[in-house]
Amino acid sequence: MQQLCGQTVRELFASKELKRELEKRLEGMPKINISRVDLEWLQVLAEGWATPLSGFMRERQYLQCLHYGQLLDLQRNCTVPGSSVRETNNNIGWELTQPLSQSIPIVLAITDVQKDLITNEGAVIQEVALSFEGKVIAVLSDGEIYAHRKEERVARQFGIIDRRHPVIDMILSSGDWLLGGDITVLDRIRYDDGLDKYRLTPMELRHLFISMNCDAVFAFQLRNPVHNGHALLMKDTRQRLLKKYKNPMLLLHPLGGWIKDDDVPLYVRMEQHKAILEEGVLDPKWTVLAIFPSPMLYAGPTEVQWHARARLACGVTTYIVGRDPAGIQHPDTGDYLYDPTHGSKVLAMAPGLPKLNIIPFRVAAYDKKKGEMAFFDESRKEDFLFISGTKMRAFARDGIQPPDGFMAPKAWKVLSSYFEQIAKKNKAKDTSKQTSISSI
Amino acid sequence: MQQLCGQTVRELFASKELKRELEKRLEGMPKINISRVDLEWLQVLAEGWATPLSGFMRERQYLQCLHYGQLLDLQRNCTVPGSSVRETNNNIGWELTQPLSQSIPIVLAITDVQKDLITNEGAVIQEVALSFEGKVIAVLSDGEIYAHRKEERVARQFGIIDRRHPVIDMILSSGDWLLGGDITVLDRIRYDDGLDKYRLTPMELRHLFISMNCDAVFAFQLRNPVHNGHALLMKDTRQRLLKKYKNPMLLLHPLGGWIKDDDVPLYVRMEQHKAILEEGVLDPKWTVLAIFPSPMLYAGPTEVQWHARARLACGVTTYIVGRDPAGIQHPDTGDYLYDPTHGSKVLAMAPGLPKLNIIPFRVAAYDKKKGEMAFFDESRKEDFLFISGTKMRAFARDGIQPPDGFMAPKAWKVLSSYFEQIAKKNKAKDTSKQTSISSI
Repeated sequence: MQQLCGQTVRELFASKELKRELEKRLEGMPKINISRVDLEWLQVLAEGWATPLSGFMRERQYLQCLHYGQLLDLQRNCTVPGSSVRETNNNIGWELTQPLSQSIPIVLAITDVQKDLITNEGAVIQEVALSFEGKVIAVLSDGEIYAHRKEERVARQFGIIDRRHPVIDMILSSGDWLLGGDITVLDRIRYDDGLDKYRLTPMELRHLFISMNCDAVFAFQLRNPVHNGHALLMKDTRQRLLKKYKNPMLLLHPLGGWIKDDDVPLYVRMEQHKAILEEGVLDPKWTVLAIFPSPMLYAGPTEVQWHARARLACGVTTYIVGRDPAGIQHPDTGDYLYDPTHGSKVLAMAPGLPKLNIIPFRVAAYDKKKGEMAFFDESRKEDFLFISGTKMRAFARDGIQPPDGFMAPKAWKVLSSYFEQIAKKNKAKDTSKQTSISSI
Repeated sequence: MQQLCGQTVRELFASKELKRELEKRLEGMPKINISRVDLEWLQVLAEGWATPLSGFMRERQYLQCLHYGQLLDLQRNCTVPGSSVRETNNNIGWELTQPLSQSIPIVLAITDVQKDLITNEGAVIQEVALSFEGKVIAVLSDGEIYAHRKEERVARQFGIIDRRHPVIDMILSSGDWLLGGDITVLDRIRYDDGLDKYRLTPMELRHLFISMNCDAVFAFQLRNPVHNGHALLMKDTRQRLLKKYKNPMLLLHPLGGWIKDDDVPLYVRMEQHKAILEEGVLDPKWTVLAIFPSPMLYAGPTEVQWHARARLACGVTTYIVGRDPAGIQHPDTGDYLYDPTHGSKVLAMAPGLPKLNIIPFRVAAYDKKKGEMAFFDESRKEDFLFISGTKMRAFARDGIQPPDGFMAPKAWKVLSSYFEQIAKKNKAKDTSKQTSISSI
């Protein structure tokens, strides 16, 4: 298995002994409260999805990521040749023998006030506690503070600067400094939302695949419900892989972190995915359903590389790239913000991902003749019906059944119930708004 | 020499025979008029500064450049694995065995009208003539047209989107399409401004260095006058190189292409540089003065990599990176647009530049005790006087002599005359404005 993915996983959890020692020192450490999205990145780091990062990025890794979309080395200091700073502690045991894809920065923004709290005569205090909702989650050591050049970061990472993009707004609203440093996470990060059992770490996934006699893993990045067109693509990918492997398995791996308000929430997607499996649209014998802890960035071709590269950690060798991956609408035009072809073009060329096999998205649509989802055939295009996400939502909202074969009935039920609820809530809001207006 | 720079130079000039053949076909080709800046890029390509590019970038190279700051390969098509497009003509003879730094796109923007002119039923016509001020300069063949996503390009390349940045404004005002393709340039590109003899191609420079028994070449990127602090840095670099080489030579290589209005024009800088050499501040025995044809982008850390990488072509092995290289003011704050340290940090890490030796800028200032420019010594900082570019201009404008040893007297004369003229012109403008106002 380790051969398959070409790297070992670097987890950042404290051992029992280390945890006990750290807990003794917590009292004396300055504390920084982190946001829910920061917590999700902490989980990404702790579980080893961003192996071999040892914590939130220092300036050196941050610049490599922004300018080259890669980690080029693991050196701590960002200096020019000839300078006198020596590398005393250089992440021993985790040498990077060749560059590794890292298209998005994993950084921790802090404010002026927080900066003052954790520095002493200009130097960062050796150990800083990171807490979420009052509970200490991790300790950051050997910290480095550098300027959070937010405008530049946003421009280079998203190719646009516009506060109507929800993640850009989040970044531009965050602190003016970035805090890099090594991370030790005290406990496994859990959310108590009934879904924690699906939050498998890369190592757990590897062990699971090994126990199931799997010899190749393929993944499809999801933040949307799965319709039968997606399922067709996954089944087709398995068929292709069966020519070379004995038991290629699918990692059905929905994104579990922050998403924008109008995306389908994780618990609904999980119910929907489970229904797909229960109805046999995807075979549970060769499918593992688990949650990917990363938050969503909507950074298109830049982000798709992260989605693929993070899956290396759990043994994925084949990645199915979606149509317009990690895309979003342009806030002015309403059209695609990113050229939908750029995601797969860039992913196919990305340096630092040499062992990853990329499967491009093939367009599937509802084949009226066959009564099922099928790969689109230009020569008889009149037979095909395209059901967009917008159309799907409208069907669900208005209680219209999509054509048989578009989605497994149980899965459709999950989704339509959710959209009906949303529609009801919106209606109630509208009514109360009208009431309050008329009462003025 | 070729060993020194690690690559051969790819010139894009037509042989005599090819030129004759092309000229016969010119009549039948659609023609596109290009701008002065396009012409400068054409010269950059033709002379081989961007070796191994075969012409204006196709989408594949463009995406590699924007996302990874490198050329990863020379394949023509930008497709994903598994697609059916075959590579029939793949730049034979110019294989890229390893990635090469290419931080800025070299592209040709065209308008809708021009696109219509050079396409026939959607396909680009096999040969397209590129003309400047009515004269055909080059033929572009095997063209490819792709969307000029200007906002995204600007964001990724400059880390800011703001029309007050002169090059960003130029890009945002340019055509909506990019035309990539192979270039054949008919004749050497000349400007008849009295400076053509200084416009040496990489191959000419190599031959010159060889004829002078040079065994290492170091360069300093310039778009400004040279004061004695710069000269000190160049002399110091030579001293360092003399420990390893017998005859390290300086390429004094001012940027010759487009610059913003308030920069010092090329002819003034050339006069100033010549005066520096005549007065022996830099020794002509180990200095070659020549013009680098590239236009200026003011893209900071992104651009400095281009400045260094282009010099590989003429045998440069050591590059002196300036303070705030390719920097400009932020249009809102007036402060540095780019972190001045990022240029050297990024350059020192840049993938695809492994054989280049980077010398960081050392701050020099006027040492009042010694009466000359010297490297700044923190321990006796009260002895040093910093003369900024703004201060230097003010001195010149107001007829004040800078302290002896700041700049060679003849060189100062060149510069002060220029600034006095500018001041006079501005005064005249102001007076005429006042006159016209009072005459209303």
